Amino acid sequence: MTHTIREKQKLINRVRRLRGQMEAVERMLEEEKGCAEVMQLIAGIRGAVNGLMAEVIEDHIHHHLAAPELTQADRNEAAGELVDVVRAYLK
Amino acid sequence: MTHTIREKQKLINRVRRLRGQMEAVERMLEEEKGCAEVMQLIAGIRGAVNGLMAEVIEDHIHHHLAAPELTQADRNEAAGELVDVVRAYLK
Amino acid sequence: MTHTIREKQKLINRVRRLRGQMEAVERMLEEEKGCAEVMQLIAGIRGAVNGLMAEVIEDHIHHHLAAPELTQADRNEAAGELVDVVRAYLK
Amino acid sequence: MTHTIREKQKLINRVRRLRGQMEAVERMLEEEKGCAEVMQLIAGIRGAVNGLMAEVIEDHIHHHLAAPELTQADRNEAAGELVDVVRAYLK
Repeated sequence: MTHTIREKQKLINRVRRLRGQMEAVERMLEEEKGCAEVMQLIAGIRGAVNGLMAEVIEDHIHHHLAAPELTQADRNEAAGELVDVVRAYLK
Repeated sequence: MTHTIREKQKLINRVRRLRGQMEAVERMLEEEKGCAEVMQLIAGIRGAVNGLMAEVIEDHIHHHLAAPELTQADRNEAAGELVDVVRAYLK
Repeated sequence: MTHTIREKQKLINRVRRLRGQMEAVERMLEEEKGCAEVMQLIAGIRGAVNGLMAEVIEDHIHHHLAAPELTQADRNEAAGELVDVVRAYLK
Repeated sequence: MTHTIREKQKLINRVRRLRGQMEAVERMLEEEKGCAEVMQLIAGIRGAVNGLMAEVIEDHIHHHLAAPELTQADRNEAAGELVDVVRAYLK
């Protein structure tokens, strides 16, 4: 991905927070914490994964589909990639 | 949407099938059919709504973002619209 | 489903609103309205389908799993039905 | 959660696989791998989070709602917890 340093760091920070949430789920399971707490945390993780996906897709649209300097071959490739992801995500 | 007649008809057919499924849910509720049947049908409807969304997004990508004849202003507008939808769908 | 009349009517009203939204999508496609509008409406429909599903599942939990008058056989059946739906919805 | 050792271990293994997938996303972002690869991996993570959620909900239904030894107070509490999660997940 051709991202600016700032965008890249923002994405990596999101992924790290998600890893921290996964580790919290693992600890809760180890310590036999209540289902309710575990389920609420997993619901939050799902939201965070969707947010990460939205951000990556947004970058892809701006940098690989809409940017003025792209060639038609670049755009066709990026369009195909995005269509595949939309299908995988919405199936 | 600037679709070919064929694409447009395919989308309308999908929407009509969905309306038929909604009518079936309504009948089941009126006739007090079992929860299990109603829940399975709603799960199917959710899948069909996702499939419809994937198809509309796919058309949007091809016709409004990747097509060679578009102006930069067209592409910027279509990119903004798609980003809004991705956010609404993945929030 | 063994619902009170009030719950049943509330569910039917939700389904009717959803049918109205599907009809609006169909009209938009017929009239070649812009993609952005169609996509936003479908995102709203997805939210409404999820809301309907949440309501039906909630009724199922209260009336078929937690209610005090149920037999163990009732509960086992309702548990199996709910597990099937959760799997279908989250796959 | 009152799980058998076997169920608990199965859940923990799922969570560990998910952590591994999150680490792979982080590495890909660090190494500026292509968007398409990153997006496909995130789509897979979303599926795995849903699968984990389905498993935890299934355990909750069996052990805290349907199990014969539960008191009515246990069931009422577990029903309330499950309803909250369904709403959080389907909102």
